Amino acid sequence: MKAAVTRGGKIVVDDVPDPAPGPGDVLVETIACGICGSDLHAIKHPDAAREAITMDGMPPPYDPAKDVVMGHEFSARVLELGPGVSNLAPGDVVTSMPMLITPQGPAVVGYSNVYPGGYAQRMLLTGAMCLKVPASTDPRHAALTEPMAVGLHAVNRAAMAASEAGIVLGCGPIGLAVIAALRTSGIQKIIASDFSPARRKLAEHMGATTVVDPREEPPMEAWRRSGGGTPVIFEAVGVPGVLDEAMRAAPRLGRIVVVGVCMETDSIRPIVGIGKELTIAFCLGYTPQEFAQTLDLISSGQIDVAPLITAEVGLDGVAQAFEDLASPEKHAKILVEPQL
Amino acid sequence: MKAAVTRGGKIVVDDVPDPAPGPGDVLVETIACGICGSDLHAIKHPDAAREAITMDGMPPPYDPAKDVVMGHEFSARVLELGPGVSNLAPGDVVTSMPMLITPQGPAVVGYSNVYPGGYAQRMLLTGAMCLKVPASTDPRHAALTEPMAVGLHAVNRAAMAASEAGIVLGCGPIGLAVIAALRTSGIQKIIASDFSPARRKLAEHMGATTVVDPREEPPMEAWRRSGGGTPVIFEAVGVPGVLDEAMRAAPRLGRIVVVGVCMETDSIRPIVGIGKELTIAFCLGYTPQEFAQTLDLISSGQIDVAPLITAEVGLDGVAQAFEDLASPEKHAKILVEPQL
Repeated sequence: MKAAVTRGGKIVVDDVPDPAPGPGDVLVETIACGICGSDLHAIKHPDAAREAITMDGMPPPYDPAKDVVMGHEFSARVLELGPGVSNLAPGDVVTSMPMLITPQGPAVVGYSNVYPGGYAQRMLLTGAMCLKVPASTDPRHAALTEPMAVGLHAVNRAAMAASEAGIVLGCGPIGLAVIAALRTSGIQKIIASDFSPARRKLAEHMGATTVVDPREEPPMEAWRRSGGGTPVIFEAVGVPGVLDEAMRAAPRLGRIVVVGVCMETDSIRPIVGIGKELTIAFCLGYTPQEFAQTLDLISSGQIDVAPLITAEVGLDGVAQAFEDLASPEKHAKILVEPQL
Repeated sequence: MKAAVTRGGKIVVDDVPDPAPGPGDVLVETIACGICGSDLHAIKHPDAAREAITMDGMPPPYDPAKDVVMGHEFSARVLELGPGVSNLAPGDVVTSMPMLITPQGPAVVGYSNVYPGGYAQRMLLTGAMCLKVPASTDPRHAALTEPMAVGLHAVNRAAMAASEAGIVLGCGPIGLAVIAALRTSGIQKIIASDFSPARRKLAEHMGATTVVDPREEPPMEAWRRSGGGTPVIFEAVGVPGVLDEAMRAAPRLGRIVVVGVCMETDSIRPIVGIGKELTIAFCLGYTPQEFAQTLDLISSGQIDVAPLITAEVGLDGVAQAFEDLASPEKHAKILVEPQL
């Protein structure tokens, strides 16, 4: 089968072996797979990216020096059931957390040298982990379950009261996911900040109540102007310097949730955190419950992800899409559709 | 009266105006005042130190370019009551949070250009904030209420279950205060780490159950060896690099409480925090309740601070004591006794 393979820091389309489902597996045909910022990072900072997804006390899940078929935000159609799978039938449209239970232990779908991710025509998934996508839901929208679940997890981790305000720094896909989760969690004041007019428009669509260009008005000023609620700041930019900026902007006893993935070493001034007794909570991923809940929110129309999809490409377009995502103004989420 | 004055980055003994108590004030004679790491920082990093104690939206409490009589960890004897003070009598031995209510608003005792701190023969305190030291308590021990309360606040901020373990990095006065508070809070496993044998001995005295030289055994190894309890790491060193080290050492979902005051810019790798979903809580000070509770713990003998006092000096000895505290091996707490 065809796949867009990450090889030596580049993306190339090549033939890779067709996967065969073992006990508990299902063979699926990828319908759509989002390109994630983590994938861009994994090419740019291979070692840091690998460290980030290595679980405590476990060996790293893959070797970035070898071929990897990335792609961990997907929807797919079931082609064939492995032995022992009874909850699915061929033809079912599914999504899943990108985790495959193998005889050698868990593998990360999209960060493995053995099991291909969603930038391939076909994948193996663990049947028991698949969630059926309702027939009324566009399977391309279901592919956004994964990044939107990251936002829900970050908001849950903040454990906010409804009277508190969410300040979202950065309106890329993760910032937008945080905004959507704040809204569906009942937060009334959602202040979002981004340099890009296109992204600010998406932020409004996802539920931000105030949207600012930080060159014109710092987000904390907009928060003050809005009259309130203890703020929780979500750092969804992930570049060096933003955490320090958030710490400076935060009020006394402020909470900062770091959901942007900064792969580089960053500088902070602890004295700023000490003086205000700040709390910084770093976030990664989501729970199975949060993942399932997010699919429900998308399927029921409570979160409308359609405007986030700014381009759709076949496998031949993946390399160019990675280039295009370097200029964030143009894109939010690019979907890879390997059957195109 | 005489005072050890901080002037142009140096400590000099000089005559300063005798304070006169206004409404609500008491004039006290300083019995003993501990030298705090913050005072050393305030000479070395005047701007950062001032930023740390400036409250949100308030003007900085003092100008480091002008004279300051520092000293905010004190016990004192009441000499004269200002109008309206009825809870005290001349001769009472007291301690207090280093905060003076003035007609111009609150001033920090020990960080003010107007009101002298405990490195002076006499001070003004706010009568309503003074706590009487029981006659059975050595007033020099009561001077350690302030730093010990910092430890209690840090431990309270961590909101630990009794089954959790405290890992204390650094056994200077603040680390030792954290150890004492962990013990009096009922934490069973207290692992302490310091390069200095003298400080490790003090750590044992304060209640550490395992004490390590990090060159011989990393504290997290000692924690593993001890068999457990979810660890909360207290960063009580306050020099660049230690927070990053704590983040690397922390397990998944680990909590780090920053109680060491690092005045310099520090480097961290956010990806380490993200990969393990760490939480970092920065700490400063204590509540009035924590301050009063700490005096009770000292007075009742539940915390024995005597071994922490490694030297006692008069005003003439303050400058040299500041020098001596640069080599932490020799000292824990040096008390200034202005009547000597």
